[in-house]
Amino acid sequence: MDLRSSCPINLTVEVLGDRWTLVVLRDMMFGNFRTYRDLHGNSLEKIATNILANRLRHLADEGFITSAPDPGHKQRVIFSLTEKAISLVPIMAALGAWGVQHLPVSAELAARAIVLDKGGPALWQDFMDELRHIHLGAPAPQRSAIAQMEAAYREAVESR
Amino acid sequence: MDLRSSCPINLTVEVLGDRWTLVVLRDMMFGNFRTYRDLHGNSLEKIATNILANRLRHLADEGFITSAPDPGHKQRVIFSLTEKAISLVPIMAALGAWGVQHLPVSAELAARAIVLDKGGPALWQDFMDELRHIHLGAPAPQRSAIAQMEAAYREAVESR
Repeated sequence: MDLRSSCPINLTVEVLGDRWTLVVLRDMMFGNFRTYRDLHGNSLEKIATNILANRLRHLADEGFITSAPDPGHKQRVIFSLTEKAISLVPIMAALGAWGVQHLPVSAELAARAIVLDKGGPALWQDFMDELRHIHLGAPAPQRSAIAQMEAAYREAVESR
Repeated sequence: MDLRSSCPINLTVEVLGDRWTLVVLRDMMFGNFRTYRDLHGNSLEKIATNILANRLRHLADEGFITSAPDPGHKQRVIFSLTEKAISLVPIMAALGAWGVQHLPVSAELAARAIVLDKGGPALWQDFMDELRHIHLGAPAPQRSAIAQMEAAYREAVESR
């Protein structure tokens, strides 16, 4: 990749690429989407198949995801987040918190971002530890950040 | 703007647009570049004039910047950050911190990001208050985050 300057903000934005890259990572982190079918079928933004394939290749090339055959379905590939991707959680939290403050978000889709913002760095650590457990085989953390976010999401859906 | 979903992460990334938008905001925040000439001439990434003009229009349309005639040079326009843009500081801090950890940043250009990361939310508040002072006429904060970052940058340049 031809990087224009060695400024950390610029480099990060260059490596992340366009918004579809972040949408795919978001779905893997927050939705636990692990297969091509999940990422294509469930994404809120209806990502086109060619864009999804291209961004998955970019994410693999840049070391954000790895892929392996699904033990249950040999012809299916399952994607995992790397440490490099998991450590993007504070960026995701900051993007979500800003969006909740400034943009016309839906109450249901804002619920997880609000939990993550209020929980602050301690909850981001728990969330990262949980992603390390799911994707990298690390021990499960004591507190489940994902369960907290899911509960807030379900509450927002039910009180609609 | 045609927004694809009301997820806060997606909306934020859609509104920010491509990386040039963030590069312009970075230069206004961290470099205090306020004019077209500054933004074009000094940017590390050598932004093309047509891209710069386009992104400044986008930033104005989305309410991230305002423009006014420079009192000193009537034919010159001076740009100011809005509250909406200033509140992107935590995102900039998170992008910079991740870049320092994971990408081949230069020591000099990493210096400000490291200060901002170590200072945490308290320093981000000071930085935002200082930007509100510079761009929105709010009272000056007691502690200058910009001076702290500049000192770290100069130290890194001198110890090269």
